[in-house]
Amino acid sequence: MRLTRYFLPVLKENPAEAQIVSHRYMLRAGMIKQQAAGIYSWLPLGLRVLRRIEEIVNQEQIRAGHIPLLMPTLQPADLWRESGRYDDYGQEMLRITDRQKREMLYGPTNEEMITDIFRAHVNSYKDLPLTLYHIQWKFRDEMRPRFGVMRGREFLMKDGYNFDIDRDAALHAYNRHMVSYLRTYERMGLTAIPMHAASGPIGGDNTHEFLVLASTGESEVFYDDRVTGLKLGAREIDYDDRDAVAKVCEEFTTLYARTDETHDAAVFDAVPEAHRKVGRGIEVGQIFYFGTKYSAAMGALVVNDKGERVPVEMGSHGIGVSRLLGAIIEASHDDKGIIWPEGVTPFPVGIVNLKQGDAAADAACEGLEKALLARGLEPLYDDRDERAGAKFATMDLIGLPWRITVGPRGLANGVVELTSRRTGESEEMSPEAAVERLVQIYAAHP
Amino acid sequence: MRLTRYFLPVLKENPAEAQIVSHRYMLRAGMIKQQAAGIYSWLPLGLRVLRRIEEIVNQEQIRAGHIPLLMPTLQPADLWRESGRYDDYGQEMLRITDRQKREMLYGPTNEEMITDIFRAHVNSYKDLPLTLYHIQWKFRDEMRPRFGVMRGREFLMKDGYNFDIDRDAALHAYNRHMVSYLRTYERMGLTAIPMHAASGPIGGDNTHEFLVLASTGESEVFYDDRVTGLKLGAREIDYDDRDAVAKVCEEFTTLYARTDETHDAAVFDAVPEAHRKVGRGIEVGQIFYFGTKYSAAMGALVVNDKGERVPVEMGSHGIGVSRLLGAIIEASHDDKGIIWPEGVTPFPVGIVNLKQGDAAADAACEGLEKALLARGLEPLYDDRDERAGAKFATMDLIGLPWRITVGPRGLANGVVELTSRRTGESEEMSPEAAVERLVQIYAAHP
Repeated sequence: MRLTRYFLPVLKENPAEAQIVSHRYMLRAGMIKQQAAGIYSWLPLGLRVLRRIEEIVNQEQIRAGHIPLLMPTLQPADLWRESGRYDDYGQEMLRITDRQKREMLYGPTNEEMITDIFRAHVNSYKDLPLTLYHIQWKFRDEMRPRFGVMRGREFLMKDGYNFDIDRDAALHAYNRHMVSYLRTYERMGLTAIPMHAASGPIGGDNTHEFLVLASTGESEVFYDDRVTGLKLGAREIDYDDRDAVAKVCEEFTTLYARTDETHDAAVFDAVPEAHRKVGRGIEVGQIFYFGTKYSAAMGALVVNDKGERVPVEMGSHGIGVSRLLGAIIEASHDDKGIIWPEGVTPFPVGIVNLKQGDAAADAACEGLEKALLARGLEPLYDDRDERAGAKFATMDLIGLPWRITVGPRGLANGVVELTSRRTGESEEMSPEAAVERLVQIYAAHP
Repeated sequence: MRLTRYFLPVLKENPAEAQIVSHRYMLRAGMIKQQAAGIYSWLPLGLRVLRRIEEIVNQEQIRAGHIPLLMPTLQPADLWRESGRYDDYGQEMLRITDRQKREMLYGPTNEEMITDIFRAHVNSYKDLPLTLYHIQWKFRDEMRPRFGVMRGREFLMKDGYNFDIDRDAALHAYNRHMVSYLRTYERMGLTAIPMHAASGPIGGDNTHEFLVLASTGESEVFYDDRVTGLKLGAREIDYDDRDAVAKVCEEFTTLYARTDETHDAAVFDAVPEAHRKVGRGIEVGQIFYFGTKYSAAMGALVVNDKGERVPVEMGSHGIGVSRLLGAIIEASHDDKGIIWPEGVTPFPVGIVNLKQGDAAADAACEGLEKALLARGLEPLYDDRDERAGAKFATMDLIGLPWRITVGPRGLANGVVELTSRRTGESEEMSPEAAVERLVQIYAAHP
């Protein structure tokens, strides 16, 4: 993409309304525009990151054997009366009346609707296990929307629902979600720690939240800091192997890590003092096992292998997709701007032409653009007629992890400069070598 | 994907509520489930087609130089008061009041919001031309939602908006959209005819609708039947070349083709009688040039090359993404079920195992599955323990364009059977040859 043809409305000034760094940088980098309190447009650069995060979530859910569908944003109120939540949910639920005076709502979550889909079509244990998920816009009418996309009202969420014949199978689904979530966050360059949590309006007795450590987090967290060193890495996981999956979960949940809602000072005191940490965290996901809470209330029954009709065992599992952009920026930035991890960057690399209009420099940039595109890496080429300083400032602000700088002086020696946004280190090499280096780097981020 | 692990709730009976074939087959093939009048869940098979259609729309918009962003589903009423449409729009607009008593609406279209984004960030002719689009859920509170996804209330639409410095540039954008739409529909296996249309609530004096001929269409259409033979084919188009683009538009709009809204009997009578046809059509898209209607009302001004501040020239252009599934099925089916064009099929090929549990047949099916996946073609493998007739009936109903049938008798001779859903013709060949044939076929449908 060439910058002169793109729509990247970068702001020079710090927007007054932004209280935290991710909100400030998302506005300044031309990623979002507020349309109403807690409601945002995703400008082209922001949409690219959002889509990339969705893609990673989809890939990891499919890898775990979960099946995508898509439920609508609006739901009939009657469905929520069946579970008893229509009256319980309070003012965060956006209630709507249509022209026929039917009561509707903008879905804040989808337990009722997915249970309705299940009961309409599945009757037998032979069709289980089954996990269905979608990535869809939700609405929660927050009293005080704030922090940009971190606490918006209209937000994008992945929510998945498992259906299993018994408690053991449902707990395996719970564990499968935990592991697939750990992998999802790692691919985004995040350390997200599973913490015992309280269940809130979803219900259920087994639940973990995933928290990213950040000083701007809304939750206070208490943890053994060895938990931050745990990594899934490249290990292979067979999601059908209950023991193997349970073992990974045990590895990631044994060290102390809790939010203020479930914190137990006595247990925390047993953590060696050198490892005892108190901090703040951003919630980026939550998993729940709640058994038959919805299936019993809504008549979602299946015949088991003894011929008995029993309510299906369920859980629900969410990832805050749009919120993740904020969380990633909170965890990865400096005073010049965002530093995107390679896994989620809007463009893999930026090309800066130091002398626009110089025939050799222009040709070299166009050659690089073509060579990168041919390898599946779409660069953002800053082809504006601007001074170098302004081009560098834009690249630093929008945070592409790699930059190739092209100028007449280097080209005279056959080299361009490849610079890491994270370390600031530069290396001179031929254009071909720069392309190969980037291909290698991004091979690890499919 | 293996059918025993998938969620494909096929119905044996014809659903009573479905009046037209596409609605009936989408329900029977387990593609959608109604959640409220005109509001549907997209079950896994339906979602795959929807995503594929979105992908084609995105690819062709990007090829034309248009830039994706994403606006929210909910909009503040005040924005619509600026254009004067808040009161004009009538009961089809779903009006919402939030907990702070602010008036909102569920967007039926986005002229106001995109104009708001433009005026906030663009001031100069130097940043033009600019075309921004999104694919987002819309809501129109239809009095009588019907025909499944063909006239739903919550529906997915691509809507794009061009911003240009003068009328000529804006008309080029109009033409660019016409050509990119023609290519989009052709890739979906559709013949969609651009017809002069009336502008309705969007406004403007230059507008074409794109209609797919089908006996169940809601619009009466009058046309010279030579128009159905026009094809873009594989020709290269330079979207920056105004004359070349205009020439393509001329080619596709010179022959008589109008809806009842703009029909002119006197002109129609001049068409040679042998070519004069009256039929019905399904609207799958519409393009508008409306000049400064919104920019003048909302103060979206740009400085031109003479230093004057002038309202920007605009147009808007829509494709009914979710409606297209219905239109494609109306245009491509038989009495056994859907016949997906290769461009939009949910899976490129189905594998039917005639003798599940037979070691050789199972191994051959698994080998085919693996070989196809390695070539980027994900098959739907019917691995159920069902009789052949039931498996064939399911494949015919869901309409995958190709089927590989694997049985012990053929395998004894080293062959499987490759069958075309459209012609019903079968050919025996080695499994390797079947894979190669499919790779060839789908190379034309990237």
